Amino acid sequence: MHDAALRILVTGGTFDKSYDELDGRLRFRDSHVPEMLRLGRSRLAVEVETLMLIDSLDMTDADRARVVEACRRAPEQRLVVTHGTDTMEHTARALGAAGLPKTIVLTGAMVPYTFGSSDGLFNLGSALAFAQVLPAGTYVAMNGRCFGWDSVRKNRGTGVFEERA
Amino acid sequence: MHDAALRILVTGGTFDKSYDELDGRLRFRDSHVPEMLRLGRSRLAVEVETLMLIDSLDMTDADRARVVEACRRAPEQRLVVTHGTDTMEHTARALGAAGLPKTIVLTGAMVPYTFGSSDGLFNLGSALAFAQVLPAGTYVAMNGRCFGWDSVRKNRGTGVFEERA
Amino acid sequence: MHDAALRILVTGGTFDKSYDELDGRLRFRDSHVPEMLRLGRSRLAVEVETLMLIDSLDMTDADRARVVEACRRAPEQRLVVTHGTDTMEHTARALGAAGLPKTIVLTGAMVPYTFGSSDGLFNLGSALAFAQVLPAGTYVAMNGRCFGWDSVRKNRGTGVFEERA
Amino acid sequence: MHDAALRILVTGGTFDKSYDELDGRLRFRDSHVPEMLRLGRSRLAVEVETLMLIDSLDMTDADRARVVEACRRAPEQRLVVTHGTDTMEHTARALGAAGLPKTIVLTGAMVPYTFGSSDGLFNLGSALAFAQVLPAGTYVAMNGRCFGWDSVRKNRGTGVFEERA
Repeated sequence: MHDAALRILVTGGTFDKSYDELDGRLRFRDSHVPEMLRLGRSRLAVEVETLMLIDSLDMTDADRARVVEACRRAPEQRLVVTHGTDTMEHTARALGAAGLPKTIVLTGAMVPYTFGSSDGLFNLGSALAFAQVLPAGTYVAMNGRCFGWDSVRKNRGTGVFEERA
Repeated sequence: MHDAALRILVTGGTFDKSYDELDGRLRFRDSHVPEMLRLGRSRLAVEVETLMLIDSLDMTDADRARVVEACRRAPEQRLVVTHGTDTMEHTARALGAAGLPKTIVLTGAMVPYTFGSSDGLFNLGSALAFAQVLPAGTYVAMNGRCFGWDSVRKNRGTGVFEERA
Repeated sequence: MHDAALRILVTGGTFDKSYDELDGRLRFRDSHVPEMLRLGRSRLAVEVETLMLIDSLDMTDADRARVVEACRRAPEQRLVVTHGTDTMEHTARALGAAGLPKTIVLTGAMVPYTFGSSDGLFNLGSALAFAQVLPAGTYVAMNGRCFGWDSVRKNRGTGVFEERA
Repeated sequence: MHDAALRILVTGGTFDKSYDELDGRLRFRDSHVPEMLRLGRSRLAVEVETLMLIDSLDMTDADRARVVEACRRAPEQRLVVTHGTDTMEHTARALGAAGLPKTIVLTGAMVPYTFGSSDGLFNLGSALAFAQVLPAGTYVAMNGRCFGWDSVRKNRGTGVFEERA
């Protein structure tokens, strides 16, 4: 299997939150994605591009348009978008509706990477694998599973991603 | 995308080593795979079966035959085999030569899961994703990449998996 | 040196906050002090009593009176009080003013114990040591140092405890 | 309470072992003590001096003489010695027999600091506190407790430090 060139587009979300010990709040500083790739001993040819570092509850339509545009202009055919889980399905729909001829996989985390018990590393490994293999289309990779952009929702009660009827 | 039923066959390796604080040695106790699936918030339909818990340098031909046989008799079509990295390529070749009509992905870790800086969670997420999507065949998922069974080797100098000429 | 019986009075604070992955907020569930004592392989004769689990910014005079009363009625002569850092100096003064004939050491953490980079374990080890050795009085143990109750303040700009002029 | 100047003398031991992912062995690289002081947000005036980085089972009488000599020539009155647990009691006796007019506290860890579940940070906090407060003499700080140099042994069966009859 030959290596596909990949790009990771960072938008923020729980994935990248840090604990600010001066005021006890969760904040964004820099993305942890490069450190996560090092920890995973990744040898993929991957570019990391930080588009924004925001909570996905704060993501506007204009922000989503920026994500779509960044995916469009990326030279790579295979993209991973890190994203807050709360509105990941909305950005997935914006990307899916754009119908770009690329493989785009959104992923995120329920717990910040810097905290001991994060699912972030598992999800990043999963998303990068799906992005290398799946045909063009927009997908959400969470909970070890992969969903099409038009058939996924986050269950707010359980925090689990599931098929949308 | 519908869920494929998966089985994880545990053979040991660095993945599952623990530090024995009484004698300062690395030992096997139980597999950490179930805990890793919990940490990854996995919702995959997955069976975990511990075949053996050994260092892959100690793996004999008879052990490899057991792994092949376990893959053959597993009711699932999609399998992940956790394995020490030192001889992973040998077991991959035994599995590849058996030519089972199943998707089999071997993975492992450079650092034990219980230590802070393990690549195990990244690799497990990656292997489970590849196993869900790739066609029948035997593969090695390490360093974020996926290799066919007949074209992979571990570079002992760098600890990195790479294509075999 | 013979073992002094100790009591740890838990009041909450950053020490004991957990990340709630359903709403992304920091919450109290149970105290992590028992788990921290296990991790520290503590063999001290110590009772853990959870008085309250609150943010120290929410601590009222009535709460402080409860802490003083709990110290008074404790059968042990040597006490550690876990406390949020923001108002630790106020509770120290309430305890100091009460003039109980006991050794009372307040401590806390800048980062929740469950996050990877917490100072909590260091501070707990430090506080328990000071509590075993110092004469009767009220103290604050933070940043590896120990301060008398009437001469300590938290520098809000740096997050560091220092002598009060 | 005014700050006592402290020196930490590093000799190695489990405290400072790292996992070498190329050969799967535990090795010494650099001491983790400076990083542990940062994690503990220590603001103590402390010098860290690495005397040696060895397993305490490999410590010879000549090594012990070097430790005694380093304690003697240190400008500080208050010293912490990090040490492997297996022969900590022997070095404690060598130091105790030397009768230096200083407070010397030996400590170590049952699990390497870089692994997730280490008692090292707890022990370091504890040892630094005892070293600041106790009168001149040689002590062992482990399991949250502090022992005089002539009355301590490690129970090899349980890994716990206890009073020697």
